[in-house]
Amino acid sequence: MKIGSILTTRGDWLSPGNGHHPIVISSRVRLARNLAKLPFPGWAKKTERIRILDEIKPEVDGLAQMRSSFSEHLNELSALEKQVLVERHLISREHAAKGMGSAVVINPTQAVSIMINEEDHLRMQAITAGLELQKTFRVIDDVDTALEAHLDFAFDPELGYLTACPTNVGTGMRASAMVHLPGLVLSEQINQVINSVNKIGLAVRGLYGEGTEAMGNLFQVSNQTTLGENESQIIERLNKVIETLVQRENQARENLLETKRPMLLDQVGRAYGILTHAYSVSSKEALNLLSVMRLGIDLGFFPEEGRILINSLLMETQPAHLQHLSQQKLAAEERDHLRADIVREKLKDLPKPNKNKLSGGQAAGPAPETQ
Amino acid sequence: MKIGSILTTRGDWLSPGNGHHPIVISSRVRLARNLAKLPFPGWAKKTERIRILDEIKPEVDGLAQMRSSFSEHLNELSALEKQVLVERHLISREHAAKGMGSAVVINPTQAVSIMINEEDHLRMQAITAGLELQKTFRVIDDVDTALEAHLDFAFDPELGYLTACPTNVGTGMRASAMVHLPGLVLSEQINQVINSVNKIGLAVRGLYGEGTEAMGNLFQVSNQTTLGENESQIIERLNKVIETLVQRENQARENLLETKRPMLLDQVGRAYGILTHAYSVSSKEALNLLSVMRLGIDLGFFPEEGRILINSLLMETQPAHLQHLSQQKLAAEERDHLRADIVREKLKDLPKPNKNKLSGGQAAGPAPETQ
Repeated sequence: MKIGSILTTRGDWLSPGNGHHPIVISSRVRLARNLAKLPFPGWAKKTERIRILDEIKPEVDGLAQMRSSFSEHLNELSALEKQVLVERHLISREHAAKGMGSAVVINPTQAVSIMINEEDHLRMQAITAGLELQKTFRVIDDVDTALEAHLDFAFDPELGYLTACPTNVGTGMRASAMVHLPGLVLSEQINQVINSVNKIGLAVRGLYGEGTEAMGNLFQVSNQTTLGENESQIIERLNKVIETLVQRENQARENLLETKRPMLLDQVGRAYGILTHAYSVSSKEALNLLSVMRLGIDLGFFPEEGRILINSLLMETQPAHLQHLSQQKLAAEERDHLRADIVREKLKDLPKPNKNKLSGGQAAGPAPETQ
Repeated sequence: MKIGSILTTRGDWLSPGNGHHPIVISSRVRLARNLAKLPFPGWAKKTERIRILDEIKPEVDGLAQMRSSFSEHLNELSALEKQVLVERHLISREHAAKGMGSAVVINPTQAVSIMINEEDHLRMQAITAGLELQKTFRVIDDVDTALEAHLDFAFDPELGYLTACPTNVGTGMRASAMVHLPGLVLSEQINQVINSVNKIGLAVRGLYGEGTEAMGNLFQVSNQTTLGENESQIIERLNKVIETLVQRENQARENLLETKRPMLLDQVGRAYGILTHAYSVSSKEALNLLSVMRLGIDLGFFPEEGRILINSLLMETQPAHLQHLSQQKLAAEERDHLRADIVREKLKDLPKPNKNKLSGGQAAGPAPETQ
């Protein structure tokens, strides 16, 4: 599979009919593994890293799960191509900075991606639409099991899997869900909710992980600890918290519909009005307005079919995607214009607003899909 | 004429076919006069004020120019009705605070309004669409001449007409033009322009005169001094400055079209998108967005016919107008919703945008009407 095919098709989890959830955008699980008795990538010399890569990559390429994958050394990819992969959450920002001695393998549905010589020798992730943490774990666990038959992973009977960073020692697993919480943000409950999630040992981060800002009301919730619990326990606990978050978000939306319906109508109307008429939209503004549009769909102000359109726009209006689309490097201003053009054009396909819902005079109950 | 007729019809200067100008919204001239040997309203006792009113009002009512006028004592008007008159620039904010002992007379076209016992015994004003300072002066000068045949005005051969505030002594005249300067604001030249206008002895103020904020890119330019020049000289000088302002504004617009066309498209598009989709719009936001829409019409992005619609909306979405329309006192939040409803509804009548102009790909010259 060529990089072009990856970059021009969207992953399964962004395609219609794949278990979309109004609040949980996606579930991801990644495992960190290292070969026994070999230095971690950050400590290894270049020749060692290349030797490690040469040992791992054929095994990854040979996996049944990774048949017909896109498989490439990072030095063969342009900065822009790597950036597109980052924007798709297929590689980490750290991995995009790597070149010779590192590689990435992505299966055709873009559900599984494997980074070689990131912070650890192996970082394997699976991503699924909606709230599917157990299922997502099984996918990547199968990959791990298959690889372990051929590779000798650094493992300590006391500690578990050994990793470059101590925070990953043990299961080497980070499970996360990307959640869309505009209701909790609009009703100003979000900080309180984040604090209570933090208190039970889970992390809440922005769109691109650690240190990134929460934009578009999107949050990543993940386990902090990898020691002292097995994978199933961690996922079970995370799953419960996500379910509670979904409940809180739905309550917040119902309250807003009851007590602040005009404000909601105004926000959704403005987001639609700006996105369909602006000629320059920054990345951050696009995220925030598309987030509000998504809420409008969840609340039934726009038909259900719009959700896939919004999901794609969230992906395709990111800086590297825009530049890849136009086959050239674009200055921020040029990107903002192209972004506005694409959004205006694509939103023409959005089915017309549900007038009676939008008029504000009708029953104010939440739309069924938010129940 | 009843107050209802005044409040539900728009003045001639807001109606179609009355010499509209893309930049100069209206010209106004007011004269301050006082009866000789009687105390100014601020110093007069209540009984004196009533005596003065009883002397002046029949003469005003009897004028040929004021036939079939609306003529009323201020204590007969509700606070809301007075506020509507303020929003139409038919009485001053100060006059709206008056009650017993003060009156207002407004002719049927709302082109002439006469306040009795405002700061002076008589404040007479004429208002005309577009840049028509000389013509507007002649209208009010005729009224003044006719009244002077029946009333003995306080006049000093050295100083001229005597007034309550020394800044009005002399001609007692304030001539002003309401100008719409979005080009100078967007290109950040406005402060420099205001400073140079101030330096030559003219005042630049916000929408409702002294001490009010410049909103909607609307500015009132008027003479500061009333002594040492006759009326024609003052008006001639003001007229020249307004013509220069119009030239500067047109230059700014041409420059913006040449160098910042995408920014202009974006601003106009956003204004249209928000106004046609928002469910809550504050008074200030409405003014600012309608101002940008007006610029869009001037630049040919929307058809010419839209200007009257925008002018009316600028008037009708003001707080007192909204409350008078709905026949009840409305809280700020309720006004914001009603305002948004009216604007959304009315803008449906706006002819569709000129697509080729809006697309940004066509010739970028200014539309003819801005020349």
